[in-house]
Amino acid sequence: VTGIITLLTDFGMSDGYVGAMKGAILSIAPNASVVDISHEVPAQDIRSGAFTLKTSTNTFPSGSVHVAVVDPGVGGARRALAVRVGESFFVGPDNGLLSWALAAAMGVVIDTEQLSLGPDVAAVSMDVPRYWRSFVSSTFHGRDIFGPVAAHLIAGEPLERMGSPVETIMALPWPAVSILDDRIVGQVLTVDHFGNCITNIGGDEVQAGDTIHIADRTISGLNRTYESSVALIAVIGSSGLLEVSIPGGSAAQWLDVQTGAAVEVKRG
Amino acid sequence: VTGIITLLTDFGMSDGYVGAMKGAILSIAPNASVVDISHEVPAQDIRSGAFTLKTSTNTFPSGSVHVAVVDPGVGGARRALAVRVGESFFVGPDNGLLSWALAAAMGVVIDTEQLSLGPDVAAVSMDVPRYWRSFVSSTFHGRDIFGPVAAHLIAGEPLERMGSPVETIMALPWPAVSILDDRIVGQVLTVDHFGNCITNIGGDEVQAGDTIHIADRTISGLNRTYESSVALIAVIGSSGLLEVSIPGGSAAQWLDVQTGAAVEVKRG
Amino acid sequence: VTGIITLLTDFGMSDGYVGAMKGAILSIAPNASVVDISHEVPAQDIRSGAFTLKTSTNTFPSGSVHVAVVDPGVGGARRALAVRVGESFFVGPDNGLLSWALAAAMGVVIDTEQLSLGPDVAAVSMDVPRYWRSFVSSTFHGRDIFGPVAAHLIAGEPLERMGSPVETIMALPWPAVSILDDRIVGQVLTVDHFGNCITNIGGDEVQAGDTIHIADRTISGLNRTYESSVALIAVIGSSGLLEVSIPGGSAAQWLDVQTGAAVEVKRG
Repeated sequence: VTGIITLLTDFGMSDGYVGAMKGAILSIAPNASVVDISHEVPAQDIRSGAFTLKTSTNTFPSGSVHVAVVDPGVGGARRALAVRVGESFFVGPDNGLLSWALAAAMGVVIDTEQLSLGPDVAAVSMDVPRYWRSFVSSTFHGRDIFGPVAAHLIAGEPLERMGSPVETIMALPWPAVSILDDRIVGQVLTVDHFGNCITNIGGDEVQAGDTIHIADRTISGLNRTYESSVALIAVIGSSGLLEVSIPGGSAAQWLDVQTGAAVEVKRG
Repeated sequence: VTGIITLLTDFGMSDGYVGAMKGAILSIAPNASVVDISHEVPAQDIRSGAFTLKTSTNTFPSGSVHVAVVDPGVGGARRALAVRVGESFFVGPDNGLLSWALAAAMGVVIDTEQLSLGPDVAAVSMDVPRYWRSFVSSTFHGRDIFGPVAAHLIAGEPLERMGSPVETIMALPWPAVSILDDRIVGQVLTVDHFGNCITNIGGDEVQAGDTIHIADRTISGLNRTYESSVALIAVIGSSGLLEVSIPGGSAAQWLDVQTGAAVEVKRG
Repeated sequence: VTGIITLLTDFGMSDGYVGAMKGAILSIAPNASVVDISHEVPAQDIRSGAFTLKTSTNTFPSGSVHVAVVDPGVGGARRALAVRVGESFFVGPDNGLLSWALAAAMGVVIDTEQLSLGPDVAAVSMDVPRYWRSFVSSTFHGRDIFGPVAAHLIAGEPLERMGSPVETIMALPWPAVSILDDRIVGQVLTVDHFGNCITNIGGDEVQAGDTIHIADRTISGLNRTYESSVALIAVIGSSGLLEVSIPGGSAAQWLDVQTGAAVEVKRG
């Protein structure tokens, strides 16, 4: 059995949690290629995990299994999901974590706290213990349920055997963008490692001649790259979203803005 | 040659040390699957490394080689060990780092600074240079000795050829738990990435009706999961040990406790 | 297609960038072994990345492809390079990042801002879009150009088809060491995870009886290992360079020195 299993968690790398999860996977599918996406999602920050999952998994080959665990409700009432989209799979808790990647794969935008999966997507609530580790803790389903199920999926076991069918999952509403005649009103969606302020405003909404407003600063027009002689710039980033950036520095730190800060695009 | 080699070090990921060690392994066993457990063990903290090794390697398939390097005495008099338990291997310095994982595999508890390996465990002091890199530094045995030996083990080379037999290794005594008639006295063994205070008290010692005492706070009874409407809770964690936790927050920070802090379980 | 592709970036592990790059590689070469060297190069610090690349890639087997991305000029005028040295490859921006690893492989020292590649090295400016992702952003060439080209190289595609020939690349001059009759004058090249101050002075220049001077402190002679009863020591580190170190502590912090600090070796 070969195949790719990606891991995205908020476990950090200083404990044994990531290793224990990898071992549980490899003890079922020893030749699987286990690929770290990130274990540095801020602890219990489901929205941050959802964004990272959406912006990283879309480059992987068809047939990959993507496991995501940011799971404050572990062991409680929340369901554990396995979802097939095309030939790829997503495995994780039913708390919204998977919803942005799934919506992107389905080509829909999420505006409520539910996502209907539609006819081309198959999903189950993973309630068949045969696919779990023999001992299941109530605090570490990454090792005991999500990892083992992913390994069985990459080994070719049918999704449908692993649980009861699910048609609607919990979703995180994408923060609303107001597109008005004279301006677009959005917000900072996330701040990346370089301090770039990534907004929820689609790059195709911004036109030549527009000005971008954030934290009492005004930016005229778009840069094509991060290179600039100007201190504060706006670019369309690698996920197709409007970003505010400082060449060689951190825009978030310099502007003193965080996730949720208001951003406006005014028509020129 | 395929097979799994896991890595646990205190090297951090900001330098080239981890990469150099991986390259040294892959130049001998290019198809080995090299799996990162952690490189974020606190620098030179043997006890923390021993706990992470114990709690992560027990999920891996039989036949894996586990390399651990937290090695303040590198290049000095401490021996370099390779140990076989069942069909799996542990490779690392003889400074206690391997002792908790080995004791768990052997089903014993360590109460002195020596561990006798017993008849089912084979170990050598790796003193045969043929299995090392051709140039051996006196400061980086992860690259020059431990990694290459692990690669030769995964390639099927017999352990017995790699060094002189060893029957007793250095051990870290497991911090003592006092089990009295009316209470159990233990301590915080480690604090994890989420701020959970993991104690040295086995979960099976705690009974319904007991109260848990830490840093002048009292916790009534055990929670099954991290979910709770109560601020401070106690759970049996994924390694089977009593933990003190705050849902959505850091118990260690809020209680202002660290490794070694006293914990008492009082009979109800 | 099997083979090893190593990754060295300044992307950090908290976003989806590393995952997206891995996915782009694996969608072209699904059985490649993708090996993380480091993603914790300080943001946009080309010199630090060049040192880590040089000190980590030299242990990998022949035939490996080493991708390095520290790329403040992404999307701008700087060329994107693919270089073959022996049977191995280096892929990254033409900003000096590859120069120290290449110079070491060629056995030369860099003293200008250009490196002539010589007859045994082949290099191209990667300007053939067929080897890129179908959509290429102007801000993320790790995902869109460097990763895909590396995957095509490991799949056996000839380097020469991927771009126009290059004979000279941008280089970082190795900080000069003055070797005088009575002393050697150098500097701290980098500080590692343990706080060791790694200098630009080759270990073979230092003689028995020399004293080492840094931050108004004097160290007599060399230690063979990091073990010592003395607080501040000098050793020849694992890359063959003179290091100043504190057993069990951080020399950089204790001495309050950083990259660039003066170091002198005085003849005894």
